[in-house]
Amino acid sequence: MNATTASVGIVSPQRFGCNEPLTLQNGSVLESYELVYETYGTLNADKSNALLICHALSGHHHAAGVHDESDPKPGWWDACIGPGKAIDTDRFFVVSLNNLGGCHGSTGPRSTDPSNGRTYGPHFPNVVVKDWVKTQATLADFLGIKIFAAVVGGSLGGMQALQWAIDYPDRLRACVAIASAAKLSAQNIAFNEIARQAISSDKDFLDGHYFDANKNPDRGLGLARMIGHVTYLSDDGMGSKFGRDVKSGDFDANEAVEFQVESYLNYQGRAFTHYFDANTYLLMTKALDHFDPARESQGDLVAAFAPAQCKFLVLSFSSDWRFSAERSQEIVDALVQARKNVASAVIESEHGHDSFLLPIERYTSALQTFLNQTLSAQTGPSP
Amino acid sequence: MNATTASVGIVSPQRFGCNEPLTLQNGSVLESYELVYETYGTLNADKSNALLICHALSGHHHAAGVHDESDPKPGWWDACIGPGKAIDTDRFFVVSLNNLGGCHGSTGPRSTDPSNGRTYGPHFPNVVVKDWVKTQATLADFLGIKIFAAVVGGSLGGMQALQWAIDYPDRLRACVAIASAAKLSAQNIAFNEIARQAISSDKDFLDGHYFDANKNPDRGLGLARMIGHVTYLSDDGMGSKFGRDVKSGDFDANEAVEFQVESYLNYQGRAFTHYFDANTYLLMTKALDHFDPARESQGDLVAAFAPAQCKFLVLSFSSDWRFSAERSQEIVDALVQARKNVASAVIESEHGHDSFLLPIERYTSALQTFLNQTLSAQTGPSP
Repeated sequence: MNATTASVGIVSPQRFGCNEPLTLQNGSVLESYELVYETYGTLNADKSNALLICHALSGHHHAAGVHDESDPKPGWWDACIGPGKAIDTDRFFVVSLNNLGGCHGSTGPRSTDPSNGRTYGPHFPNVVVKDWVKTQATLADFLGIKIFAAVVGGSLGGMQALQWAIDYPDRLRACVAIASAAKLSAQNIAFNEIARQAISSDKDFLDGHYFDANKNPDRGLGLARMIGHVTYLSDDGMGSKFGRDVKSGDFDANEAVEFQVESYLNYQGRAFTHYFDANTYLLMTKALDHFDPARESQGDLVAAFAPAQCKFLVLSFSSDWRFSAERSQEIVDALVQARKNVASAVIESEHGHDSFLLPIERYTSALQTFLNQTLSAQTGPSP
Repeated sequence: MNATTASVGIVSPQRFGCNEPLTLQNGSVLESYELVYETYGTLNADKSNALLICHALSGHHHAAGVHDESDPKPGWWDACIGPGKAIDTDRFFVVSLNNLGGCHGSTGPRSTDPSNGRTYGPHFPNVVVKDWVKTQATLADFLGIKIFAAVVGGSLGGMQALQWAIDYPDRLRACVAIASAAKLSAQNIAFNEIARQAISSDKDFLDGHYFDANKNPDRGLGLARMIGHVTYLSDDGMGSKFGRDVKSGDFDANEAVEFQVESYLNYQGRAFTHYFDANTYLLMTKALDHFDPARESQGDLVAAFAPAQCKFLVLSFSSDWRFSAERSQEIVDALVQARKNVASAVIESEHGHDSFLLPIERYTSALQTFLNQTLSAQTGPSP
């Protein structure tokens, strides 16, 4: 099977319902919750080949394969997950979930609050990265996975992978943080705040109660997505893709001109509103802003990583200015100082932050080599 | 007088009313228009020391000094204009106007359309950089200035200075383009489009007719400003200024946390709505997007600069990612290839695009030296 076209094929989401009360970091309690997840590949007999995928801001459980034969679009990380691919489903049993607070099937703002029978909406409690990791560990318990061969994520997903290494040091053998950061910079927080303001300013947001009112803050959510989209690409990458090409209108005829890049962004913004929930967007950006594992050790990231026992792979991309190579270097420096086993690389790419989703040769090779070695070291030669 | 504290003192805006019909680039005709302007310093006998300031997106005529003794805030470029400063009012007669289509006194969307007695609002015609330069030349005629010693501008103002060199080659001796570009990149157009969408999405925008309805699209205009503000600063600069400092709330007490950078941006957004007009913002960003003097010569910037006769100074700032040093280098390269007299420098600064407004020593020295030499070369030793 060709690695570039290989697919896990048709996959079906599964559900895990947890009836144990969950106390979140902010003290709120969820009496029960559900997580939707998918798995790709086969769990081996000693359950040593499980790999957890943690998703980013706008991600979900559907990371690879298709939902049926007519499904036009594979999962969001299909470029990297499949037979023979970087995350090789011939070797790994891959678990991919929709995080708590998400809008793709797991309990979140669109779910019904059992205490009053109403949609949670804006009353869904704030969830932070530590909470996600905790619920992911509970899902692992349910699946009978004591130790993950690796926990892997890009961007906000990388933050979860790092938190795993700190909170459950004996439950993962490798942590892969791609295009991530140990904490957001002021600029990143600023972009998130602007996205939140765009959503909350929309007249149809209704203080978060839009769902029950059968409205949706389409324009605000679309704007938030447009802001994200521009900042996830690089100036050069956008230049290569769009330049100053004109979509409609004519300068010479003194007509109003719409550039291709404007048309593209408006399309992306509109499309996003069909599959994403505004309250979830607010929740996810807040989780991003608040992530800072060094906070508990007075800003000392080296101390924060002290409990970790796994191997680390830290990858970043040359043109990613939202989660720059310097931010990844801070992680690497702290891990080295904490005497952890860490490999890292800065991958040349003009695709900005979105590079982590793309099948860039040097990136996928680095990822595949690291993951396969980790597996072989623990379980002997792979089949 | 100390160069850092020297001020032009109290200044008063003046008005120039033009009753000659103006045909704009898009074919629209304004039967008459007014420009508001200020002057600093004294025009010498042979009128050879006049210097024109062209303003940027959110600028206006009030570039230096104060309007009365209790005025808490000097003009927007007071750091660079004044006795002994980079733009030395002991030597130059400085002319600073509010561009046509502006919202600080010149004819624009808030003015009354004489043809129907109503506020122009969204019906104010699109104005482009060439139009501004044309009206600035008309203002110069009115002031009796045949030749400017220099035309100076930052950002969108730099574009006007470049257009001057092309359209009126015999009417300026020097052109200074600071933190500017020969055309916007796709990323820049994208940020402008997001700002426009933020404004037009506001429920109080009313398709541009907010003024007559006694409304204002405060949230959309505020958002547009926030987007601009973040992109005019650098990641490092924001890091130095705000870091992850918390304005209110407490992580440890599980309270909602507002970061300083969020509070600052929200304040800036709100403040902007008190002094800027949304229709003008749309008009100015469109003028930015459309600027591309090479368009008339099939993309050949060298050919576009062929008519120019003046000296050029092209300055940029190391941390400016919105109008990067590479964009300035494109201008310099084209000027060199066109065999023009050009000096240039990239100034180290962590303040991003906003650097051009700040009294950065190497920047102000470079500007002052260039301008003073230009003047001495033409008019003999200055007094």
